[in-house]
Amino acid sequence: MRNKFAKISIIGVGLIGGSLGMSLKKERLVAEIVGIGRDEEKLKQAKKLGALDRWTLDFKKGVQNADLVILATPVRTIPQIIRRLTPYFKEKCIISDVGSVKFSVIQAIESFLPKNIYFVGGHPIAGSEQAGIQFAQEDLFKNRVCVLTPTQNTNQEALAQIKSMWEEVGASLVMLSPEEHDTIMGAVSHLPHLVAVSLVNTVGASPKSGKKFLSSVGSGFKDTTRIAASSPILWRDIFLENKEVILKMIDKFKITLENLREFIACEEDNKLFRELKKAKDLRNKI
Amino acid sequence: MRNKFAKISIIGVGLIGGSLGMSLKKERLVAEIVGIGRDEEKLKQAKKLGALDRWTLDFKKGVQNADLVILATPVRTIPQIIRRLTPYFKEKCIISDVGSVKFSVIQAIESFLPKNIYFVGGHPIAGSEQAGIQFAQEDLFKNRVCVLTPTQNTNQEALAQIKSMWEEVGASLVMLSPEEHDTIMGAVSHLPHLVAVSLVNTVGASPKSGKKFLSSVGSGFKDTTRIAASSPILWRDIFLENKEVILKMIDKFKITLENLREFIACEEDNKLFRELKKAKDLRNKI
Repeated sequence: MRNKFAKISIIGVGLIGGSLGMSLKKERLVAEIVGIGRDEEKLKQAKKLGALDRWTLDFKKGVQNADLVILATPVRTIPQIIRRLTPYFKEKCIISDVGSVKFSVIQAIESFLPKNIYFVGGHPIAGSEQAGIQFAQEDLFKNRVCVLTPTQNTNQEALAQIKSMWEEVGASLVMLSPEEHDTIMGAVSHLPHLVAVSLVNTVGASPKSGKKFLSSVGSGFKDTTRIAASSPILWRDIFLENKEVILKMIDKFKITLENLREFIACEEDNKLFRELKKAKDLRNKI
Repeated sequence: MRNKFAKISIIGVGLIGGSLGMSLKKERLVAEIVGIGRDEEKLKQAKKLGALDRWTLDFKKGVQNADLVILATPVRTIPQIIRRLTPYFKEKCIISDVGSVKFSVIQAIESFLPKNIYFVGGHPIAGSEQAGIQFAQEDLFKNRVCVLTPTQNTNQEALAQIKSMWEEVGASLVMLSPEEHDTIMGAVSHLPHLVAVSLVNTVGASPKSGKKFLSSVGSGFKDTTRIAASSPILWRDIFLENKEVILKMIDKFKITLENLREFIACEEDNKLFRELKKAKDLRNKI
């Protein structure tokens, strides 16, 4: 089962792209990995860390003859890059991605991709606030969930290959439609992120901020806001691409918060207790 | 410096009360610790774990002849318990607490406490979602911040004793007025808690919840909502006692969130990016 692919190109060698390169090399799933990007220093570092065999700043040359091309760039750039490179993919090339939003991205790609080039949407749930090749690890995907989002247009053989690749690097696969994926991620990832950002900016904007605030920060605040330190570019793209779902989730969240506010304002002890108890019970189930 | 106190009574032997008992015994700061509470099983467990020398369900007898009485119960009960026990404290007895809200509690206590009994407000920032004596540790306060909130009525000798006690168990002291304490905690602890509860209840109430949601939960959601699993009774009391500050913080938070919502709805790329960047920079300072 080794060297299933002769050549894999990874566009974007940050935390996820770099870790995937390392994992693929470790499991000997590929003869050659080519790293593609715009930043020479990052590509050099990725090669040094063993995530790549060679690298290029030339996207077109980089994808030529690749059996598999993985896009690990901010979500909004994914359809743009694929569209631009379409003439350069070899026939039956499999293209996949690791982006956090699927529906709009896949809809765009399927609208222009020729039938003899195969796209499979993927999303390994392995990101963190630590972006960049310097945090890449060869075991990042071990015991992590990886969501694949096939559509009615997805080539079954290509899907099987991508499935098998993620399994080989240790991930547990979950199959969802792109819409289901985005709804779930909107709830459990995008909304919490937006809320963490709002928390940090609310507290940071307070006139009493500064040393006294920060010296009193317990582990609660630290944990609740950890993800707010994530890459602003990656997250701007996620929020804009999953806009409809996120707006709905924000509105639901506002209602829940408003209810809690009302219970506090009116000193509704029992109702407040019940909301807190409900949250505790739900949270304990995770 | 050992056995500075002949008898310390701890009312409420959960995570904080129990850990303080263990710490005081370890540092040999007291000849005898008496645990006071309503739940015989918990008191027995606290004694077994070395947090107490003896225990009683009789609050009045429990505080008699104590040099120091520590209240480690939900914040709303603190003034009530002290008021009820006032006739039983010995002269020059020092009373302190570990509650998360200070202004309203201290105001109430100072309104009725006789001049020859001394109250010092305290708040070790060492709580977690794991409430209960079973999580108590003898080194819980090591390298943690403990806030003391003296007022113009605070006896200086009593304050010095409480300061020294917390230093001996390893805490770093911060002095704040009760109002400052509550404003800071409203921002860095109470608001995040309320937001975490709202997040869990929003996601939990979603019709698509259940297995699919939970299997896709990454570390982001887990960390952001960890504190939502805390004790509903403790937190109901905190929200109600720090009501004015919390309502103001909720309103500030709503404005920040609404701005972000607007930037997403109108696809204001640059403004959205700047908000995310601001949060990242602020969060990285912690």
